[in-house]
Amino acid sequence: MSFTFERKINYYETDRMGIVHHSNYIRFLEEARCDMLDFSDMPYSAYEAQGIMIPVLGVNLDFKRHVTFNDVIIIKPFVKEFNGVRLTMGYSVTDKKTGDIVLTGETRHCFTDSNLKPLNLKKACLDFYEKFDNLKNCRRVSSGTEHFDNCRWGRGILTIFYCRWGRGILTIFY
Amino acid sequence: MSFTFERKINYYETDRMGIVHHSNYIRFLEEARCDMLDFSDMPYSAYEAQGIMIPVLGVNLDFKRHVTFNDVIIIKPFVKEFNGVRLTMGYSVTDKKTGDIVLTGETRHCFTDSNLKPLNLKKACLDFYEKFDNLKNCRRVSSGTEHFDNCRWGRGILTIFYCRWGRGILTIFY
Amino acid sequence: MSFTFERKINYYETDRMGIVHHSNYIRFLEEARCDMLDFSDMPYSAYEAQGIMIPVLGVNLDFKRHVTFNDVIIIKPFVKEFNGVRLTMGYSVTDKKTGDIVLTGETRHCFTDSNLKPLNLKKACLDFYEKFDNLKNCRRVSSGTEHFDNCRWGRGILTIFYCRWGRGILTIFY
Amino acid sequence: MSFTFERKINYYETDRMGIVHHSNYIRFLEEARCDMLDFSDMPYSAYEAQGIMIPVLGVNLDFKRHVTFNDVIIIKPFVKEFNGVRLTMGYSVTDKKTGDIVLTGETRHCFTDSNLKPLNLKKACLDFYEKFDNLKNCRRVSSGTEHFDNCRWGRGILTIFYCRWGRGILTIFY
Repeated sequence: MSFTFERKINYYETDRMGIVHHSNYIRFLEEARCDMLDFSDMPYSAYEAQGIMIPVLGVNLDFKRHVTFNDVIIIKPFVKEFNGVRLTMGYSVTDKKTGDIVLTGETRHCFTDSNLKPLNLKKACLDFYEKFDNLKNCRRVSSGTEHFDNCRWGRGILTIFYCRWGRGILTIFY
Repeated sequence: MSFTFERKINYYETDRMGIVHHSNYIRFLEEARCDMLDFSDMPYSAYEAQGIMIPVLGVNLDFKRHVTFNDVIIIKPFVKEFNGVRLTMGYSVTDKKTGDIVLTGETRHCFTDSNLKPLNLKKACLDFYEKFDNLKNCRRVSSGTEHFDNCRWGRGILTIFYCRWGRGILTIFY
Repeated sequence: MSFTFERKINYYETDRMGIVHHSNYIRFLEEARCDMLDFSDMPYSAYEAQGIMIPVLGVNLDFKRHVTFNDVIIIKPFVKEFNGVRLTMGYSVTDKKTGDIVLTGETRHCFTDSNLKPLNLKKACLDFYEKFDNLKNCRRVSSGTEHFDNCRWGRGILTIFYCRWGRGILTIFY
Repeated sequence: MSFTFERKINYYETDRMGIVHHSNYIRFLEEARCDMLDFSDMPYSAYEAQGIMIPVLGVNLDFKRHVTFNDVIIIKPFVKEFNGVRLTMGYSVTDKKTGDIVLTGETRHCFTDSNLKPLNLKKACLDFYEKFDNLKNCRRVSSGTEHFDNCRWGRGILTIFYCRWGRGILTIFY
């Protein structure tokens, strides 16, 4: 299974080098991450409603190519590691027009209460824990195409194309 | 005719008051303005390709209600004044869920060359001048519904619903 | 009395037009406003500690000239109107090197509790009300120089130059 | 030798978690990097004037603690690696009040012409190459204190405290 998030570059996201300022990519990854949570039926606002936060502990980004105003990027977020206490998300970002890799990266997270004290998601909210754990099983294959073992939505479905409001596009193939 | 731009609020656009930081609305208006230009077949990148820029000379915003993360806003940009030298864009922004007005505002612009020297769009690019002038005829009616006199796309069409890539939605009614 | 806030332009605040993106000026004005509050012994964090917020109800900006990376701007914030319920702040921004006006503007505010319900500052915190009211008496004279009638800090002082941590510079003259 | 950059957190840099949004730290590091270049007599604008750019190839950040509005952070940027073609900058960020580490990180760069084609700084501008190479000799010691071997400014000087316009503070000790 592959989760895909499309995003057009805004003018205010460029700098005077003529390209997207590198700080903005962290924001694009957050958009993709939140959209993946929305899609997975555990929107970040539902976490907050339960007093759970998912702060960022670390970021690694490798920029490969630059994009600029009006370019469209495709972000593929995926769960690299998850155990209820720590979470590592991976991302690949490509230029929609050329297919070139724009950046690869990862963000590292923990789960906390509203006072930013760490907690174990398995104890704090088993439902969300299981949904996240399920996402972990959507493995990423090195070829750049995605493959799934045991996804809730995907089992036995040949091809589904799902388009939501202006943002994420989910393609399930088997 | 009414041009409508939908936009979901990102987490990074909130501040610790819990709501969208007011500086971001200027960015949302720019997104809507650029999307209107894209739709009108004179994307801002085409202006730039001809060495024409449309800097902002002034901004007026009146905030009515606040929105926050995950809320969806609907922005309606429209041309208030245009004579080839000066341009005033108006905007109304509503909360999609409640229909409440979030803000009303305007941005004032001129047209310049790439050295930011003012120019007359009628002389610099008659094609774009005429397209803009045409947009001016898409008048805005005080009731909040939109009405058109003489729009290129709208003439004689009863209802068209057009949805493009994750962004603008154009509704033409007659 | 004149409150002055100096600010260097960062690279990430430019856009591909080569100049500061206009949305950033609203942020610069907020910096100057907060610095004025800090200086006036009622820092915004002290408001928040008392459960008082000062959201923005409106913004008017007139851009006169552009600045870019590494330029230094001088912002002069001043209280235009204040009655405990509503507040209007005025600002002039100049290019330090040339002395040219970069923009003039105002922001309109109210005072609210932490649920964003309006309140009267006079009732909620008389101390802050009086400090703000005092700022109102620091009138602004059209020549661009500042003049005061009845300021707490200024009375009878010939010239004071006060430099704080990397930010605001207050010049009092009589 | 140690280069130190102080920075107050602005309200607009917080998010609704109540703390600085993590994307902003990349911007703070850029401010510190540019300030170090200013101080080292090769401001980034002088690079641009010669058609040289220093884009970011990669970013690694490890967040240790959070800060929020009105907190002051101290950023220590230093050159980890430099050979005229590639540059790695390291950073430690501390909370001024508590002395706690807020984040450690690095940014990786190359040098390019104005078309973003890589170049060798030694060939493109020997003067800047030598200044950068000199910065490399300002080694960083693991204890968190800084030590220099062979710095242009530092040789034989016991203690100098240098405060410039609202930003960087250089402390040289021997």
